[in-house]
Amino acid sequence: MTMLDANDRALVDGVLARQLRPLAKAITLIESQREDHKARAQGVLEALLPHTGGAMRVGISGVPGVGKSTFIEALGLYLIEQGLRVAVLAVDPSSSLSGGSILGDKTRMERLSQNPAAFIRPSPSAGSLGGVAEKTRETMLVCEAAGFDVLIVETVGVGQSETAVAGMTDLFCLLQLPNAGDELQAIKKGIMELADLIVINKADLDPAAAMRAKAQIKTALHMLRPASPNWTVPVLTLSALKKEGIAEFWQAVSDYRRTLTASGEFDARRRHQALAWMWELIDAGLRSRFRTHPQVKHALPGFARAVEEGTTTPSAAALRLLGYVQA
Amino acid sequence: MTMLDANDRALVDGVLARQLRPLAKAITLIESQREDHKARAQGVLEALLPHTGGAMRVGISGVPGVGKSTFIEALGLYLIEQGLRVAVLAVDPSSSLSGGSILGDKTRMERLSQNPAAFIRPSPSAGSLGGVAEKTRETMLVCEAAGFDVLIVETVGVGQSETAVAGMTDLFCLLQLPNAGDELQAIKKGIMELADLIVINKADLDPAAAMRAKAQIKTALHMLRPASPNWTVPVLTLSALKKEGIAEFWQAVSDYRRTLTASGEFDARRRHQALAWMWELIDAGLRSRFRTHPQVKHALPGFARAVEEGTTTPSAAALRLLGYVQA
Repeated sequence: MTMLDANDRALVDGVLARQLRPLAKAITLIESQREDHKARAQGVLEALLPHTGGAMRVGISGVPGVGKSTFIEALGLYLIEQGLRVAVLAVDPSSSLSGGSILGDKTRMERLSQNPAAFIRPSPSAGSLGGVAEKTRETMLVCEAAGFDVLIVETVGVGQSETAVAGMTDLFCLLQLPNAGDELQAIKKGIMELADLIVINKADLDPAAAMRAKAQIKTALHMLRPASPNWTVPVLTLSALKKEGIAEFWQAVSDYRRTLTASGEFDARRRHQALAWMWELIDAGLRSRFRTHPQVKHALPGFARAVEEGTTTPSAAALRLLGYVQA
Repeated sequence: MTMLDANDRALVDGVLARQLRPLAKAITLIESQREDHKARAQGVLEALLPHTGGAMRVGISGVPGVGKSTFIEALGLYLIEQGLRVAVLAVDPSSSLSGGSILGDKTRMERLSQNPAAFIRPSPSAGSLGGVAEKTRETMLVCEAAGFDVLIVETVGVGQSETAVAGMTDLFCLLQLPNAGDELQAIKKGIMELADLIVINKADLDPAAAMRAKAQIKTALHMLRPASPNWTVPVLTLSALKKEGIAEFWQAVSDYRRTLTASGEFDARRRHQALAWMWELIDAGLRSRFRTHPQVKHALPGFARAVEEGTTTPSAAALRLLGYVQA
């Protein structure tokens, strides 16, 4: 157990007391790249850890234009009406380049962001997807310690960030548009097979098209390997703008949670996610140490060139380079 | 440079003299799990290395029933007629379980296997995909040193073995059946986006269906990110059984080679493949050393349990475990 100084102790107490300022400060600490901040962040997380795990963690993905913000705002306000507290986070590896393409400002969820039972935090801009995902995972723990009942993690991407978000949430939801061919995009990017729930938004614009899209998605789902033997992925149609279908959506989420909790898969998924996260960090750590080892750093460019030119085999080069670290 | 003993020197000389027995013995040495054999294999490979790189490396994939064996036999015999020597290898991670589901015996390519200009080798049964792929990559080098002009690497799988084969060949070809929906399977498994060339086999059975499948695949390809800016993936129809379309297939392979050689992408792909292979081996080596470190081995189960139960964070566990290796 790390000992906390008075400042960090106050931060922990503030988070546990569900105060928004300490919550925001704790997340800023977690997102910091400074080495002393990283050590402090680990201490704060350890202290908060016994108070985590209580929220329903929902991942939401969909292409730009599908209406994610509108949907999340409608869902968030609905959940708050039910007496729940909602935190909205984001994983967007491009935000460091674009200056925050999703959730960069809160104007996109204006009503939700002004509600005291909601907390909206833009994506950390830590550069690599792995870095962004790790910060978000830790931020989720802080939000749970601060008593939020539902965590919504939004992402938009080309497959990789979706895999990361599905790997940190209990339920992964894919938002689709009511037009044919959209599902092919999701299949080819490997996103559809991650989905526990599929929503066709803007169904009010063209109900017939929405029904066709629903049938096509159901056909496509039949060909994908089901993630759980106990759960058939539902395809829902709704209109976030008109707030139609939001209660049915949350009912499906609740059904999912109940079904998978009964079969033990809900907890198994969380255990598996935590373990996979640990191994990701270990692999990244091993690779980083390897690359910064003085002899490896010195010899790597030469070996890489020799491998590229075919004057040595990849195996021989790997063995020699690994030999430096062993010695 | 490793010094070779007289036995291994004779093996190297035999391979370079294009003798089949030394070739088979060298591959057996490469496939061996014994530590002393592994060291000898590396020495033999180093000695052969200056004589490698000369073959056209073609990967071929497709679901069971698509006619891979018939196609490879027809292609192999055609190439031999053109004066070329052909080696057929396989990557099948399931072969250790099934006792060799593909190329387990040579009866499936009876005429080709009896031809002195052909060499057919079943998949190594080394267990993991990574292990099988590494052996096959090294076997390819031995075959090149033995003067084979074309290396065909066959695989059948659910995506992962296809990625491995595409990562070790110059051109990756996907065989499809002339029926709608087959392409959806390939898209969802991420196989179609790996293809440099697509072949609809058994086109003679239902020419109209084959043309429909061709159109659908072309549409699907439009939505996938092209692998090369200089190459439009052709979709060919043929009948391997009737030996129709084989010359056109090889013409497309030759066009591909000429186009990508001119743009520099052919060599760039080989350089990239070799480097990626080196990093795979380094990562595997780092992970293996980590797991066998005495303190890690002792502490890992406890940390894994704590992470699964949520009594410590994945970050904290990863840091502590990495600390043992650093010390």
